[in-house]
Amino acid sequence: MKVLIVSAHPEPSSLTNALRNVAISQLEADGHEVRVSDLYAMNFQPCVVREDFPALAEGEPLRPTVASMQASATSAFTQDVLDEQEKVLWADAVIFAFPLWWFSVPAIMKGWIDRVWTAGIGYQLSGERYGAGRMSGKRAMIMVMIGGRETYFSAGGVNGPIDDLLFPITHGMLYYPGFAVLPSLLVYRTHHLDGRYDEVCDEVRGRMRDLFTTPPIPFRAQAGGDFDEQLGELKPEIAPATPQGFAPLYKP
Amino acid sequence: MKVLIVSAHPEPSSLTNALRNVAISQLEADGHEVRVSDLYAMNFQPCVVREDFPALAEGEPLRPTVASMQASATSAFTQDVLDEQEKVLWADAVIFAFPLWWFSVPAIMKGWIDRVWTAGIGYQLSGERYGAGRMSGKRAMIMVMIGGRETYFSAGGVNGPIDDLLFPITHGMLYYPGFAVLPSLLVYRTHHLDGRYDEVCDEVRGRMRDLFTTPPIPFRAQAGGDFDEQLGELKPEIAPATPQGFAPLYKP
Repeated sequence: MKVLIVSAHPEPSSLTNALRNVAISQLEADGHEVRVSDLYAMNFQPCVVREDFPALAEGEPLRPTVASMQASATSAFTQDVLDEQEKVLWADAVIFAFPLWWFSVPAIMKGWIDRVWTAGIGYQLSGERYGAGRMSGKRAMIMVMIGGRETYFSAGGVNGPIDDLLFPITHGMLYYPGFAVLPSLLVYRTHHLDGRYDEVCDEVRGRMRDLFTTPPIPFRAQAGGDFDEQLGELKPEIAPATPQGFAPLYKP
Repeated sequence: MKVLIVSAHPEPSSLTNALRNVAISQLEADGHEVRVSDLYAMNFQPCVVREDFPALAEGEPLRPTVASMQASATSAFTQDVLDEQEKVLWADAVIFAFPLWWFSVPAIMKGWIDRVWTAGIGYQLSGERYGAGRMSGKRAMIMVMIGGRETYFSAGGVNGPIDDLLFPITHGMLYYPGFAVLPSLLVYRTHHLDGRYDEVCDEVRGRMRDLFTTPPIPFRAQAGGDFDEQLGELKPEIAPATPQGFAPLYKP
């Protein structure tokens, strides 16, 4: 199969990049084809700017969503964006490797999402999303390097539960365009890894061996019959009586 | 009082910038001093890079957290970061105005957080955070432009509840450094604002008039006695029996 790894750490010898390389080795040993977008090494430009839409008429105000929709019919995007889209469309699975900075991806990776997920790629003019969309049939997974202790990210942890903190990424940035999203690979206490490094490498290798068999996170599909089509809300018979955060968006 | 507004939209005539200007006018009419960081106009550099740490020894691998801690004693940061820190330290309140792109801030604003929240500013070597920290005594608020309908972000909405989606920002990026965080100002269906524009402007003006009196979101302070200090988890007598997302992190 074909795998794209998108990584985002400024230090070539960082844990993020070391574990990315472990993943590459394992995937290649298993016969997969691997391509890498090392965003820092590529000096990827992360800001959505007017120049991203070469067909936008002079003097026309930039409304990014509208401009993206207009550009999508002829793929009138910049070459750096087209190159990344080509890699994603080529891949059967996409892996994102990054350090958790301020409870999200580093800016350079947010910019990859902001720019590469154009109309026709990240979202569809038809409105297909969450279980449908251009990335349908592909898998995605995030590998996250976390400085803090695991208990700080537990159900009662002071930072909030990690799967909820990552939900805007796993559900919002990946399930939305249609990926089947695998459970996140989380490495905690990265500044005190010491004796655990080999164990973590083993975990990465295991997750790579199982990349195409691991059951994805059971998010509810938008067109799966659970949501009111007009309101985009769970039907009354499914919705919980009291608010429960993101929990209702998983299939029981 | 003194107010800093940080805004992030590439189009000068965008709704984000229009409402930012409405906020500025109201604040100034009420006698407040206002400064603005328009990140696109400033061409703010959003990526944490090696050059952010001028004192880092040649050949020393870049570990951003460690480098930031080492640099913090002498504020050995780059001038663009120091300039933003000076504005934040000057302000009594900081407002962030941005469009919701992929369920988070635009990359350029994520980069402002990644780079400006250095050790000594965003986080303390002493570990003080969540209700304590360098931003203690200051207020923060986000103004978010959202393309979708409100029902899509409700308790049963297909995107997830908006306050939970924004939690990594309000709690993670703002309450963590010590800000009292006000309820978010949310503008939905921004592509179909039509007859609602005046009403939205009124809401912005109202929120500005009440900026220093609106009760903040009642997040639980880390040192407020609710958390086990070692584990960073809610004490057993406070923790809910079943997982409830971010809900337990609010004071009842």
